[in-house]
Amino acid sequence: VRVHERARSAEDKAQRSEDLLAAAEAVALERGGIRFVTVAAVTERAGLHRTGVRRYYASKEELLLELAERGWRQWRDAAKKATEGGSELSPVAVATILAETITSLSVFCDLLAHVAMSLEDEVDLERDRRYKSNATAAHDELVNALERASVMTLIQTRALVATTVALTASLWQAAHPAPTLAALYEQEPEWGHDALDFEPRLTLILQATAIGLGEVLPSER
Amino acid sequence: VRVHERARSAEDKAQRSEDLLAAAEAVALERGGIRFVTVAAVTERAGLHRTGVRRYYASKEELLLELAERGWRQWRDAAKKATEGGSELSPVAVATILAETITSLSVFCDLLAHVAMSLEDEVDLERDRRYKSNATAAHDELVNALERASVMTLIQTRALVATTVALTASLWQAAHPAPTLAALYEQEPEWGHDALDFEPRLTLILQATAIGLGEVLPSER
Repeated sequence: VRVHERARSAEDKAQRSEDLLAAAEAVALERGGIRFVTVAAVTERAGLHRTGVRRYYASKEELLLELAERGWRQWRDAAKKATEGGSELSPVAVATILAETITSLSVFCDLLAHVAMSLEDEVDLERDRRYKSNATAAHDELVNALERASVMTLIQTRALVATTVALTASLWQAAHPAPTLAALYEQEPEWGHDALDFEPRLTLILQATAIGLGEVLPSER
Repeated sequence: VRVHERARSAEDKAQRSEDLLAAAEAVALERGGIRFVTVAAVTERAGLHRTGVRRYYASKEELLLELAERGWRQWRDAAKKATEGGSELSPVAVATILAETITSLSVFCDLLAHVAMSLEDEVDLERDRRYKSNATAAHDELVNALERASVMTLIQTRALVATTVALTASLWQAAHPAPTLAALYEQEPEWGHDALDFEPRLTLILQATAIGLGEVLPSER
């Protein structure tokens, strides 16, 4: 019975951890950004007492880093699905898949900048190691799936995926300005015009980069 | 006499403001990043009492936003100088100039992510308006100088400059990890390898993007 109970409790704990991730994601979507996520809002939505989160995550930053880790797996899955059965996809097609799949994960797009600017420094080294290890594994699978399905080489694909991550991190933030800047854009719409055009901009630049990588990183095929 | 005194005092004030900017830049360079800049370190270096900064900047965030504004002017000047007398520069040459000039301004590269993630929201709307107005003016001059000196169209040049800013903001941060991540990279060098290679990566991706923009944004020339 005890073994059974322990298993049951482990299952419950895993479920609660998932519930908290889902709650954090919902709060970020509802409030318009990770910057507005609070522990109070997350626990309330998950139906837990505010202090209950500590059993699952040592801090808000650990919870958000876990959400980013889940985002990497979701992006990998979406890209694998989009390339399934594909072969000899053009660089432009690969760029389009990268842009479509990453922009479908809005909270992940938002998290990318927070991970680099603060989350990775606000958790301890071992948690960071687990994040990097899992994110790298998902990244490598995503790269391999794209490379297999396309005419691009591994080194070109890696460069294009790195560009996708770097551009998404910046362009998502530019397109989702914090309150003061959002108020300014209301007054001066021409300043916000380009910045707010997130997905079309990302897609166009990635397509251009994908085409050009064929010249600056020539393949031997 | 009074007019003279007032002029002298205005001159002194402008000089002190400049001294504080130079001090903030020096502290950022010395400590390895904007994230380590404190008001205490800046005022000490500028030879002012800690509270003295308030006469010139309402907050650390205002001081740093001013530093970013100065960075835009410095980047514009560097790009104008690099294109002086140039004509019919290739897209790859323009990309190389953009990468060389922006990476020569290390503190500006660092500031780009801080501006977007926090500084623009931590000052008031009017200060934000002044920042956007001055940054946009410098940006437009930079774009025009590159367009005039190259075979690229205005729309291609604007897209390439936007890509430079977005990539630089992300890649600089990735290449200058905060302490926890830096410690992890010491233990697992393969994770840091690509990230730390800032200037070569930025240059290569921008060259690829510049080439590809000719195809995705065809010119009518």
